[in-house]
Amino acid sequence: MSTTPTLSVYNSLTRNKEEFKPLVEGQVSMYVCGPTVYSDVHIGNVRTFISFDVIYRTLLYLGYKVRYVRNITDVGHLLDDGEDRISKGARKLQLEPMEVVQKYTNGFHDVMRTFGTLPPSIEPRATGHIIEQIEMVQAIMDNGYGYESNGSVYFDTEKYIADQPELYGQLSGRKVDELLTETRSELKGSSDKKNPSDFAIWMKAGEDHIMRWNSPWSEGFPGWHLECSVMSTKYLGDTFDIHGGGNDLKFPHHENEIAQNMGACGCQPSRYWLHTNMLLMNGRKMSKSEDNSISPAELLSGDSKHITQPYHPMVIKFFMLQSHYSSTLDISDEALLAADKGYRRLCEGLKTLEGLGLSAKNQTPGARDAELLKLLDDIDTELCDDFNTPKAVAKIFEILPLINGYKGGTIAADQLSADALQQTSVKLQRIFSDVLGLQSTLDDQSGGGKALDHVMELVLDMRQSARQSKDWDTSDKIRDGLAAAGITVKDAKEGSTWTIN
Amino acid sequence: MSTTPTLSVYNSLTRNKEEFKPLVEGQVSMYVCGPTVYSDVHIGNVRTFISFDVIYRTLLYLGYKVRYVRNITDVGHLLDDGEDRISKGARKLQLEPMEVVQKYTNGFHDVMRTFGTLPPSIEPRATGHIIEQIEMVQAIMDNGYGYESNGSVYFDTEKYIADQPELYGQLSGRKVDELLTETRSELKGSSDKKNPSDFAIWMKAGEDHIMRWNSPWSEGFPGWHLECSVMSTKYLGDTFDIHGGGNDLKFPHHENEIAQNMGACGCQPSRYWLHTNMLLMNGRKMSKSEDNSISPAELLSGDSKHITQPYHPMVIKFFMLQSHYSSTLDISDEALLAADKGYRRLCEGLKTLEGLGLSAKNQTPGARDAELLKLLDDIDTELCDDFNTPKAVAKIFEILPLINGYKGGTIAADQLSADALQQTSVKLQRIFSDVLGLQSTLDDQSGGGKALDHVMELVLDMRQSARQSKDWDTSDKIRDGLAAAGITVKDAKEGSTWTIN
Repeated sequence: MSTTPTLSVYNSLTRNKEEFKPLVEGQVSMYVCGPTVYSDVHIGNVRTFISFDVIYRTLLYLGYKVRYVRNITDVGHLLDDGEDRISKGARKLQLEPMEVVQKYTNGFHDVMRTFGTLPPSIEPRATGHIIEQIEMVQAIMDNGYGYESNGSVYFDTEKYIADQPELYGQLSGRKVDELLTETRSELKGSSDKKNPSDFAIWMKAGEDHIMRWNSPWSEGFPGWHLECSVMSTKYLGDTFDIHGGGNDLKFPHHENEIAQNMGACGCQPSRYWLHTNMLLMNGRKMSKSEDNSISPAELLSGDSKHITQPYHPMVIKFFMLQSHYSSTLDISDEALLAADKGYRRLCEGLKTLEGLGLSAKNQTPGARDAELLKLLDDIDTELCDDFNTPKAVAKIFEILPLINGYKGGTIAADQLSADALQQTSVKLQRIFSDVLGLQSTLDDQSGGGKALDHVMELVLDMRQSARQSKDWDTSDKIRDGLAAAGITVKDAKEGSTWTIN
Repeated sequence: MSTTPTLSVYNSLTRNKEEFKPLVEGQVSMYVCGPTVYSDVHIGNVRTFISFDVIYRTLLYLGYKVRYVRNITDVGHLLDDGEDRISKGARKLQLEPMEVVQKYTNGFHDVMRTFGTLPPSIEPRATGHIIEQIEMVQAIMDNGYGYESNGSVYFDTEKYIADQPELYGQLSGRKVDELLTETRSELKGSSDKKNPSDFAIWMKAGEDHIMRWNSPWSEGFPGWHLECSVMSTKYLGDTFDIHGGGNDLKFPHHENEIAQNMGACGCQPSRYWLHTNMLLMNGRKMSKSEDNSISPAELLSGDSKHITQPYHPMVIKFFMLQSHYSSTLDISDEALLAADKGYRRLCEGLKTLEGLGLSAKNQTPGARDAELLKLLDDIDTELCDDFNTPKAVAKIFEILPLINGYKGGTIAADQLSADALQQTSVKLQRIFSDVLGLQSTLDDQSGGGKALDHVMELVLDMRQSARQSKDWDTSDKIRDGLAAAGITVKDAKEGSTWTIN
């Protein structure tokens, strides 16, 4: 690329697109709220984690050293009835809570691996930071923002709002009055709180609650919002660069995180807040009760009435990257089918490009070099515009006709130089693999696959020679051998192609 | 199987083979010391974890409900110079300690996945249990077995030996006198201890030590031995069924674990102690300094002067299972080559067996049915004899000639009934996949691979013809084409074989 464009990101906190300037030059600290491991990961969460994976990869591509922390919530995330999700999952499965945690953490990692995301630099668990959480509860209390009530400790939102009238509600866009009277509380039926909007930062465990630790206030467990305040600052410092998560976490989770950090350290945790948007299904919100949802496993197996075929994880990922992370994304069979076709075109285009520069003869500048190189630069520009993957992908699709035209002869060989083609090949491969984290589905015949490509080239060549010299014995032998191998050859004007049946 | 044989295990604590009777009928609780994640996992540890994986699988096969806990040591395991391994690894890599932990935990899981081991039911981390460790230190102190000295807390071995003269040294077979004067201490140069054999259960952190937590005694971190005492009993109860680990952990790690549990709870943690033995390299102890070691990655890639080719993970695993877990195992290229051949025979035999029962016509008992079914029972007998995988595998190799003979016609079709063949097929597949955790390498060339086999057959056939008819043009073309495909052909009397480079 000529010069790296300036990176700008949409900051949910300020509601503005801002130039991204990390605290320490050349280094980025990023925290993303990870899964609560009490059930299989939701496809909406998969989208969020894929989005932040591409953001992580883009930052690495831009040359930043990145410390990327994504947590595992293995305690404290309550349901509306006030029960811990992990404990409820454990009772349902008749397992020890930590067995539930292990089962779904493994499952989550498997799904992430299937979709080709990079592991974060640190993946801390809430249960691994109980001491630190107790310490932050104490700091919040010491600063007057927390109070104990019957063994639980609550965050005093009234005092916080009085002290910071601008802050509480800023991220989620809620009005302070609304927040104060907010009835949907963490602990329904709890009369220990002074205000309905106060939230638990330490909870006394009920008698049958298995996950419990000693604390100055009670045997209990930390509140859900607290873990992220603790783990982000432990590994990234009191203030760090990026905090990410799904849109649905803005309130109460992220709003309360900010309140806790302000209460404990007197500063905002993150300078840029990035939020992914919702996944829809055929235009409507996904919901199990409305029979309008699909799981990652179902998408991959095709075992759902909502789709007509299984989809390759790379196709699903490509489909997701064709929308901006901050837009809603509507899953439908039609859209996935289109992505499937588009992805194949993309992979084929990249395969065509492979080695094209090395074998190209034209060592002098071509008339269309500039056009090609401009498109390459445009990809970076789009990525630097709030990680705009759909537009970056669109730029690649503008490049492909040039490649295919050159290969097919509709663009004359002197129009593009060997150097420009080689640059394009290297760059697109990097964008495809390193930044978007995609893998060609054409190479799926791994191991044998590439060798098979070469050997087939040899065989088709010999078949051609045999036919030309009317050596029918040999050409029959090849025909039978390929049939036994389950390979179908199609002859066309441009040459022969083959597929495995 | 007719009736399940009684399971017996060699108990390192009593030095006897004993009938295995779990505390709760039908349920087994098992704890195995996991890796310290400060570097790539050692092949000797891989052997240990594969061994316990097969033990876990065998227990499941025998119908037990098993809770299998294997920890991750991510703090507190000191080097001889008294430095924490994780911290040292972090300094070396210029990373935050938890980044080191993440990196090598991921790497460990990748290796375990490559070797096809099951994840444990719970995989707790030492840093996730600091509160519980502080509580156990307190309990040990309350019972008079621990004392504070300059912010660190030590276990008082002298008092423990006085109270339990029979116990300390029982597992490792060391004499109490030796133990008391043992000079190789955890903390060289530490004069805080009353006796050289005392060991730290809580350590005050030096100023530059990043991993530290508040405690009643100092900002510090727990001793290595302590974490296993804490995590095993937290998830399995004060006394559980099986405690496993490598032989090298007997002293001081396991001996001290027992002392800690006795000191804190007054009871032995585990009823059966199982230990895996050492891995040798060409008959000598593996040692990096003597240039006599090999890593899992090197075994898999072939990138080591000690071996002549890469080995498939299943071949390496099969090689390991051909020795008993409690015997030393000598790695050498010859032994691996032999295992490679043996494993291929095993996979081919199982493939021959597939569907043989279903297609067999003989519905009446065959004269050799009993012989076959006896061998099937023998496999269970061997597995129940302290998980004797080499003998169980040997029984499978006694079964294969019957199968191959039947298939090849040297054993008449009426000698074996369809039912006996079908039983054999189902049982061997179960032993192979579920109990030994193996996968056929014959299926490895999925997708493109099988096609490649066929196409290569065709190409080698054409190469042979070209040579015979002295058509050097064609044979040269094939030679070049295969070279481009990265395929090496070896010619031998029995025919040509090929490998992908």
